[in-house]
Amino acid sequence: MPLLRSLLAQILFSLPIWDSFMLDYNVPGGKLNRGLSVIDSYRLLKEGKDLTKDEIFLACTLGWCIEWLQAYFLVLDDIMDDSHTRRGQPCWYRVEKVGMIAVNDGILLRNHIPRILKNHFREKPYYVDLLDLFNEVEFQTASGQMIDLITTLEGEKDLSKYTLPVHRRIVQYKTAYYSFYLPVACALLMAGENLDNHALVKNVLVEMGIYFQVQDDYLDCFGDPEVIGKIGTDIEDFKCSWLVVQALERANSDQKKLLYENYGKKDKASVEQVKKLYHDLDLKGVFAEFESKSYEKLVSSIEDHPSKAVQAVLKSFLGKIYKRQK
Amino acid sequence: MPLLRSLLAQILFSLPIWDSFMLDYNVPGGKLNRGLSVIDSYRLLKEGKDLTKDEIFLACTLGWCIEWLQAYFLVLDDIMDDSHTRRGQPCWYRVEKVGMIAVNDGILLRNHIPRILKNHFREKPYYVDLLDLFNEVEFQTASGQMIDLITTLEGEKDLSKYTLPVHRRIVQYKTAYYSFYLPVACALLMAGENLDNHALVKNVLVEMGIYFQVQDDYLDCFGDPEVIGKIGTDIEDFKCSWLVVQALERANSDQKKLLYENYGKKDKASVEQVKKLYHDLDLKGVFAEFESKSYEKLVSSIEDHPSKAVQAVLKSFLGKIYKRQK
Repeated sequence: MPLLRSLLAQILFSLPIWDSFMLDYNVPGGKLNRGLSVIDSYRLLKEGKDLTKDEIFLACTLGWCIEWLQAYFLVLDDIMDDSHTRRGQPCWYRVEKVGMIAVNDGILLRNHIPRILKNHFREKPYYVDLLDLFNEVEFQTASGQMIDLITTLEGEKDLSKYTLPVHRRIVQYKTAYYSFYLPVACALLMAGENLDNHALVKNVLVEMGIYFQVQDDYLDCFGDPEVIGKIGTDIEDFKCSWLVVQALERANSDQKKLLYENYGKKDKASVEQVKKLYHDLDLKGVFAEFESKSYEKLVSSIEDHPSKAVQAVLKSFLGKIYKRQK
Repeated sequence: MPLLRSLLAQILFSLPIWDSFMLDYNVPGGKLNRGLSVIDSYRLLKEGKDLTKDEIFLACTLGWCIEWLQAYFLVLDDIMDDSHTRRGQPCWYRVEKVGMIAVNDGILLRNHIPRILKNHFREKPYYVDLLDLFNEVEFQTASGQMIDLITTLEGEKDLSKYTLPVHRRIVQYKTAYYSFYLPVACALLMAGENLDNHALVKNVLVEMGIYFQVQDDYLDCFGDPEVIGKIGTDIEDFKCSWLVVQALERANSDQKKLLYENYGKKDKASVEQVKKLYHDLDLKGVFAEFESKSYEKLVSSIEDHPSKAVQAVLKSFLGKIYKRQK
């Protein structure tokens, strides 16, 4: 999306050096899935009509706002998770001279979003809805992060807290709203829709977001590192993964004991024990079952929607992630 | 402000335990100057007319929003400054089990503001201006914090960066907008005013905010610890204080050398050397001069304003801080 690049350059140019460098370090470099979804969705909502230059620019602008929101979450999450690398480079807070200044940098990233919105959308009839939408989604994401942080509190490794409803709640709030609902909601607002009339769209996208994260958890253990581009460490990191939650549901008391003893340990032998247990409990089969059931349910929900254009948006989203290997 | 308490209780009641405890720890406990300024200003703008219960409630709600904004800044600033105590208790991030989760808690505090605004102001004609206002002021504050953090970068103690324009810029952005302009701007919006017509009000309040911070810097060194309730440590902490900036402006080369050698050192002898230099340079006199000049300028600017009610608001503010000893 070349227009996105020029928008970024335009913003960076007007900023003090530190801010400009910080944005350039943290905003680009991702896969831009979320940002691109806005323009893709908007195009489908317009049912093949040619978009004007202005429409393309505005959709790209909203796409970048989502990328900035994401950058803000990542900068702060990396601090809270004590992470080392992000998108192939050191986390921002680990860069020399940055340190805890990164907290304020995250805040600045976030604060650019309403500035961008005001610059380009102040006169649009849906401006206030756009502000409400970004506020709502940011709150949901921060709430998801809170549930996640409290559940997986460092130094209190306690597997008994990991249950299916807890996993679902974390994923729904921390990821689904901003990654799946937000891009489509932006496109709907641009197309003149009232979001209050689109509860079904929200539900479908949240379900899709949860399904996406379950895939992520699955691929972390069973995916091909060559294909997904990293070696999963959810077991070592004591993550509240869909796999461990499913294992806990299905394990007998001996198997539970094994999980409690080995989950979250760094040594290879422990990790192998956990993987073997996943195998014994046929979690690959459980996942395949979950995947096809989710797909069926999503398709049938989508087909309940009265608008063919909206159906097309949702199906396009689903098509991109169904049975993905990376 | 009892209504404020009940509003807080109402919000806390609806939240998960962690969130509720976090808010109760961080939001109350300050002097509530900023919050109370909204209702005081609104009352003056209404020129003695009795306020309805609803008006009082709404003004108090905006007052609390500013207190929440303040709590959010303080929680994050304490992390970035590596502080120990705040309002007589350990900083939130130093509480057991909290740690870096405090970053997200700061974000959550902030995210409650648009929720409160949406709950109580969504139908008001000035709702969108309220959102724009809070967004603008938050950005200014975060920008001030950035300038401050970069200027006073740890491990790079460099007095040559401390100049009057730098001091002014930090204070203006980091403190004046949210502490002085924001409460009055909230009251003006409630009174149906268009903020675009109130550039003079903004300028006066920003000047007042700068004057207030200069007093703060002055009292940190020359105030009575019994009266201000704490022992100042700006010299030890290598702060970009108005006093050191003034000293650098006036010092001869020997005195400059002395400052460079002793400013930012923890030992008593160094601190005493700096204080003696402040005395030799008659910074008390410089401050007295600054105080009376600022007062004159502010009064004359205020009297330029066409509305007597607005004059009353600004004069009341000024009256509260002129020649304050704490």
